Amino acid sequence: MSFPSLDGETPDKLIARLAAAGRAAQRVLARLDHDAKAAALRAASAALRADSASILAANAEDLVAGQLAGLTPAMLDRLMLDPVRLEAIAAAVDAIAALPDPVGQVIDTSVRPNGLALSRVRVPVGLIGIIYESRPNVTADAAALCFASGNAVLLRGGSEAVRSNRAIHTAMVRGLESAGVPAAAVQLLPTQDRAAVGAMLGAAGLIDMIVPRGGKSLVARVQADARVPVLAHLDGINHTYVHSAADPAKALAIAVNAKLRRTGICGAMETLLLDAQFPSSQAVVAALLDEGCELRGDSRAMALDPRVVAAADEDWHTEYLDSVLSVAVVDGLDAALQHIATHGSQHTEAIVSEDAEATERFLSEVDSAIVMANASTQFADGGEFGLGAEIGIATGRLHARGPVALEGLTTYKWLVRGSGQIRP
Amino acid sequence: MSFPSLDGETPDKLIARLAAAGRAAQRVLARLDHDAKAAALRAASAALRADSASILAANAEDLVAGQLAGLTPAMLDRLMLDPVRLEAIAAAVDAIAALPDPVGQVIDTSVRPNGLALSRVRVPVGLIGIIYESRPNVTADAAALCFASGNAVLLRGGSEAVRSNRAIHTAMVRGLESAGVPAAAVQLLPTQDRAAVGAMLGAAGLIDMIVPRGGKSLVARVQADARVPVLAHLDGINHTYVHSAADPAKALAIAVNAKLRRTGICGAMETLLLDAQFPSSQAVVAALLDEGCELRGDSRAMALDPRVVAAADEDWHTEYLDSVLSVAVVDGLDAALQHIATHGSQHTEAIVSEDAEATERFLSEVDSAIVMANASTQFADGGEFGLGAEIGIATGRLHARGPVALEGLTTYKWLVRGSGQIRP
Repeated sequence: MSFPSLDGETPDKLIARLAAAGRAAQRVLARLDHDAKAAALRAASAALRADSASILAANAEDLVAGQLAGLTPAMLDRLMLDPVRLEAIAAAVDAIAALPDPVGQVIDTSVRPNGLALSRVRVPVGLIGIIYESRPNVTADAAALCFASGNAVLLRGGSEAVRSNRAIHTAMVRGLESAGVPAAAVQLLPTQDRAAVGAMLGAAGLIDMIVPRGGKSLVARVQADARVPVLAHLDGINHTYVHSAADPAKALAIAVNAKLRRTGICGAMETLLLDAQFPSSQAVVAALLDEGCELRGDSRAMALDPRVVAAADEDWHTEYLDSVLSVAVVDGLDAALQHIATHGSQHTEAIVSEDAEATERFLSEVDSAIVMANASTQFADGGEFGLGAEIGIATGRLHARGPVALEGLTTYKWLVRGSGQIRP
Repeated sequence: MSFPSLDGETPDKLIARLAAAGRAAQRVLARLDHDAKAAALRAASAALRADSASILAANAEDLVAGQLAGLTPAMLDRLMLDPVRLEAIAAAVDAIAALPDPVGQVIDTSVRPNGLALSRVRVPVGLIGIIYESRPNVTADAAALCFASGNAVLLRGGSEAVRSNRAIHTAMVRGLESAGVPAAAVQLLPTQDRAAVGAMLGAAGLIDMIVPRGGKSLVARVQADARVPVLAHLDGINHTYVHSAADPAKALAIAVNAKLRRTGICGAMETLLLDAQFPSSQAVVAALLDEGCELRGDSRAMALDPRVVAAADEDWHTEYLDSVLSVAVVDGLDAALQHIATHGSQHTEAIVSEDAEATERFLSEVDSAIVMANASTQFADGGEFGLGAEIGIATGRLHARGPVALEGLTTYKWLVRGSGQIRP
């Protein structure tokens, strides 16, 4: 397989050409009803299943190239497809097809004294750019989410997965076309030239929104360089605060689950705040240590168990994504709120408490995308929130916040129905 | 009055210091209920009235300086305050105080099968930067809108109005402080140094959103340079399409009102599309010409009246903001939709028609922030929409679209109430 260069076309011209095609396709897509979009997505998932041999063969080539290029075992695992993973990708497309359609939903209505009838109606954002790393499942997942919400999409995956992404894209587009959808509704950047990524990021007015999916450095680079609005998910430095009135058994179970169920997800707890008046802190700390978690604490946390090591300043603002946890003992709710305001990343925070007043103050005053009471921060997930699937968990403040699914890929317009009104 | 320089502080440090103070004040402000915010705003409007002599004196100095600097009469008029205008400014603050509070509104709720109770609740955006030109009323208006929605604000007005802005700001802050609000909730940039504007635009993570208020060149510069999300209002190249089944009297009244009621507002019609099958085009064109409007048309529009002059290519994408209108004759709804998709700026478009099917297709297929049927585009206004006041009419697609009032200055957070749930 060749890796096409830009063939003499400048990156800006390439992106302008692809964007124009995508925008034209989106105007067709915007008029499809839910049944038509769902049928097209099911045709795309059927094509993924029909092409499984060629997709897995392309993936095998990516894996060989990745081994030669010295990818780590973790990177190779992220890249690897097998029949089970490929079926999961196709099933995810079917699940997205079954989600309620946000397009056309009426947000609110009003009638003005002069008789003008106003309504706000959800419409697609338009053309969405997705920039991602080596997981080939993102190709199908992001394409399906954008399509289901009426958006055209321009995909740019990582070079490691280029053959896999092309095979997945080829299958999906064939499926969509068989259902009468223009191929340009889902486009994969035809080059891995990095200048084309730069052109995507600069394509204000052509691309309506960029969603980076990947590690912190990818997201940070996209945010730094983009002239197009970015829906970004950055660090999840998530806190769980065990209040003095916490139920000890719940506190222990939630702390262990929030940290250790899966340490590598953005909803994992990274700092545990133990109230100085909570009587069972020792048991919580011991349970985490017994499960093999490294604890880095302040002096009072170190006094709870000799296995707790000293935390450095940077531990309080580190997203470990590993079996490591920072632990501080705090004097009451206000100190916990202050710690979170100082060190948190406004992703997900939780309180464990049986005290309704303290709980509601925490829910009200913590300024994070997700604030929980008596639950594990690992629930920070679009699927767990009933959204069906997510394009990411947004840590910015505008447009959409927290888990972003189909609704977050829409905007709205105002409809005004009159009977000849003119403005005095 | 002196114009403080940066006094040795770098622009970035100045903005970081002001932003930190603003963010701290915002955390206090976020906890005020509607009554407390309304009382503080009424104290601010009372202070504006109490300080009317000093505000008008400061404004008189600005006017003298403006005359010496050669400002045009139109610019001087925008700058000028008198007792009537100042009372209108104070009354607008009172009106904003009386608006419903978006903060704390519950957007939606759900209960998951595992018992987790989810809700999305509106919260302030945080710290908002407003960059504006010579109208001193924006100082009070923007401050009140940001404050009423729980946001701290950092204001940077035009140099022409610097004395007026300072006098208005001084009065409002004294009023807010008398109601117990920290002064840093509403800050005016203490320098007119342009480097400080650059630092505001680059203050990603410190300022949550920038709203430029002013002419096209200001907005374009802010959009080009900002690393902070921008809520921008750009061109309103608004179309009115008179369908074949339009009521002739409504078509005539709407066309004249949409163009000529006030030509300088962003909701004014700039292009009239007359259906070739509409029988009364000649009367509509004659009425506009008789009212003194210059019409620039395509060949078929020119054939309607000898006073119609030939349109150049650029007329189809020009926002005149004057008694000038481009006029095209189009062959049916699809041609009108195509013209709007090609030349529109996605601000406000209207159809005039008694045909329900054509009307609904137009409302559905035109991709503008505001789409109207049988009404004048001059209704594109937050007040007319019942929003009470607006910070602007957003022409971007994300976060908020069309007239942006208090709700558009909020975001949301997810609250999750559990009873000890851990994720399997």
